Amino acid sequence: MTYEDILYRVEDGVAVITLNRPDRLNAWRGEMGRDVKSAMRAASDDAAVRVIVFTGAGRGFCAGADMNTLQVIQGGNAAARSGAGGASDFDPNARADFRMANSWFPAVPKPIIGAINGACAGLGMVYALYTDIRFASDAAVFTTAFSKRGLIAEHGISWLLPRLIGFAAAADLLFSSRKVDAQEALALGLVTRVFPAAEFEAGVMAYAKMLANDVSPRSLREMKRELWNAQLESLGESIAAADADMAGSFASEDFKEGVAHFLEKRPAKFTGK
Amino acid sequence: MTYEDILYRVEDGVAVITLNRPDRLNAWRGEMGRDVKSAMRAASDDAAVRVIVFTGAGRGFCAGADMNTLQVIQGGNAAARSGAGGASDFDPNARADFRMANSWFPAVPKPIIGAINGACAGLGMVYALYTDIRFASDAAVFTTAFSKRGLIAEHGISWLLPRLIGFAAAADLLFSSRKVDAQEALALGLVTRVFPAAEFEAGVMAYAKMLANDVSPRSLREMKRELWNAQLESLGESIAAADADMAGSFASEDFKEGVAHFLEKRPAKFTGK
Amino acid sequence: MTYEDILYRVEDGVAVITLNRPDRLNAWRGEMGRDVKSAMRAASDDAAVRVIVFTGAGRGFCAGADMNTLQVIQGGNAAARSGAGGASDFDPNARADFRMANSWFPAVPKPIIGAINGACAGLGMVYALYTDIRFASDAAVFTTAFSKRGLIAEHGISWLLPRLIGFAAAADLLFSSRKVDAQEALALGLVTRVFPAAEFEAGVMAYAKMLANDVSPRSLREMKRELWNAQLESLGESIAAADADMAGSFASEDFKEGVAHFLEKRPAKFTGK
Repeated sequence: MTYEDILYRVEDGVAVITLNRPDRLNAWRGEMGRDVKSAMRAASDDAAVRVIVFTGAGRGFCAGADMNTLQVIQGGNAAARSGAGGASDFDPNARADFRMANSWFPAVPKPIIGAINGACAGLGMVYALYTDIRFASDAAVFTTAFSKRGLIAEHGISWLLPRLIGFAAAADLLFSSRKVDAQEALALGLVTRVFPAAEFEAGVMAYAKMLANDVSPRSLREMKRELWNAQLESLGESIAAADADMAGSFASEDFKEGVAHFLEKRPAKFTGK
Repeated sequence: MTYEDILYRVEDGVAVITLNRPDRLNAWRGEMGRDVKSAMRAASDDAAVRVIVFTGAGRGFCAGADMNTLQVIQGGNAAARSGAGGASDFDPNARADFRMANSWFPAVPKPIIGAINGACAGLGMVYALYTDIRFASDAAVFTTAFSKRGLIAEHGISWLLPRLIGFAAAADLLFSSRKVDAQEALALGLVTRVFPAAEFEAGVMAYAKMLANDVSPRSLREMKRELWNAQLESLGESIAAADADMAGSFASEDFKEGVAHFLEKRPAKFTGK
Repeated sequence: MTYEDILYRVEDGVAVITLNRPDRLNAWRGEMGRDVKSAMRAASDDAAVRVIVFTGAGRGFCAGADMNTLQVIQGGNAAARSGAGGASDFDPNARADFRMANSWFPAVPKPIIGAINGACAGLGMVYALYTDIRFASDAAVFTTAFSKRGLIAEHGISWLLPRLIGFAAAADLLFSSRKVDAQEALALGLVTRVFPAAEFEAGVMAYAKMLANDVSPRSLREMKRELWNAQLESLGESIAAADADMAGSFASEDFKEGVAHFLEKRPAKFTGK
């Protein structure tokens, strides 16, 4: 597979997808959307991959929609703003909410860690919010940007952001488009952890490899689906789904290994089955 | 328009609505509810107004329902507790949730900043929670108060408060009616920012004027509606609504200006159209 | 009533339920589930009890499902994992979500304070999350543990945890099963307050007795139901329910006392009626 706008590598169970238009702060365009979708598919299909890291090359994570794209849209071609390209077909079994344009990261059956290395704006914020966990370099800066462009809260960010950081903080960031640095992002709950820039890649990879090696890949897959579905379920529905899934876990190899390694006081060797 | 229980002024795109019964810590009564509704309508209808600040005169923000009103209710006249007066008609096009008694601030099509200058109790807490963003003076003190009066969690506070500060913190504040100062309110997420009392009004107005002058009024209007609706929608519904709204934003004057001022590296001049 | 796996006592309006298998870090088994259910019923039925504290004896709060139970399950007897024993009948009038196995703490009509004295893992985390408010000793350590056993996010934790601490923090704790100490638990919002171990019991009891003595038991009962129901309602539904409940509160003895003790500037003497 050859990619135009991204880099892809696999290391110790971790697939790293890197947005790679560093001279444009990784501004998003249609080609990038297609590449990201292909790479997510490759990572999903590769049994050697247990965790996905989603990051950017250079000083930016993703500066948002490419300004050329916006100008084309103003010229009347709204379809140019297709983002990840009608990407609703990632997993036909996923809940419909996770099969819409740009909303399909939750349908990827492996954890996606957003590694926010630098500027994260507009559409870049949207994609960051669809990852499961976000870590930031202390060089990262966040801005929603839409209100300075005369745009709206796009692609589900009006739903995602308040649930992550609370209504008022989301309103503040969306209304003002003010810039938030990594420490404030941490305080708000926008990111889970901040690393010094020099230690960022090592820190992210250490966490990702820990997930890839120390815990059950089966658990990761089940839990990711449970967590995203639970956002859209009643408590009773989530309990019923978990009860149904529990029988499968009791019969799994990973559960057998999960008890065995504990009793034998040794590191686990999970297969994901 | 003459008001009895409030003050109203407009300054640089910002309408300031001030509860004005300072000798009663701005305790709420029916006249106040009617005045607030009229002033919110005036601010909505005035094209020169882009942002609304909602605050109190003197030492209090709002001490809750007037004790005289509570005594009248005990005398058998529950209708006295009408609050903002069956105010369900603010915007007939708004979601029904935002057309009930006291729940209509979200239907006001401009951002409402709650500027909590002092004591905020009971019904005062309810109104504060219906604003979009809350800033506090360090002289502010918060208490739900209902459990000390033998009352319940009224007017939707059982829904609003846990979504803002988490279930357990909401249970703690509602069960105990304990007093929370501004710094704890900030830590809990009950308010977004705290200013020293001497700098409070200037700090609030600087933020409000920034919203009124630097970002698109069209974006503010669309985003406010999106954010409140998204609290009651599935992710898929929010995405579908945003996709539908996006076409309108692409055709707007504010989008044209939003791209133009960026490319021309000059301050924006948004019209809200 | 004789209990096998717990201790039960009532003190100044507070019932204390203590998991009592300290040599097993209070690992959960069927007997414990039955005892907890009986004790919660006793506390609910006892008019002298206004608040419930739920804690553990010794170094642990609850280390999760007993490892013997897990081994029996691996032997094919999944029914051994019945937890609190098909406990769906606690309150037949409660919302169905709160009548499922292990999900019935919200149906107990008095506040439950989780007093997390030590290790809290797996199923112990689930029960902790079903309490209304959690306080922790600084000796407490939390871990979800499921992903190290090859299990899933069980019994509704996929629904509860993200709503309490946010999606990403929940994903981090569930995916990694990493250990979280009391201070981090406080920062995450997993617990509401942390006490030094030596002052823990006194601190918890002081808060519980304050609730039992200073506020209306009627308000506590109504508010607990409102808060849990509101998690599953639209804003409009919560407002409508509150409006209906408000009439009852206006006619109550506790409301009369709530106004009277305020006007007479004396401590309240609530009856709960």
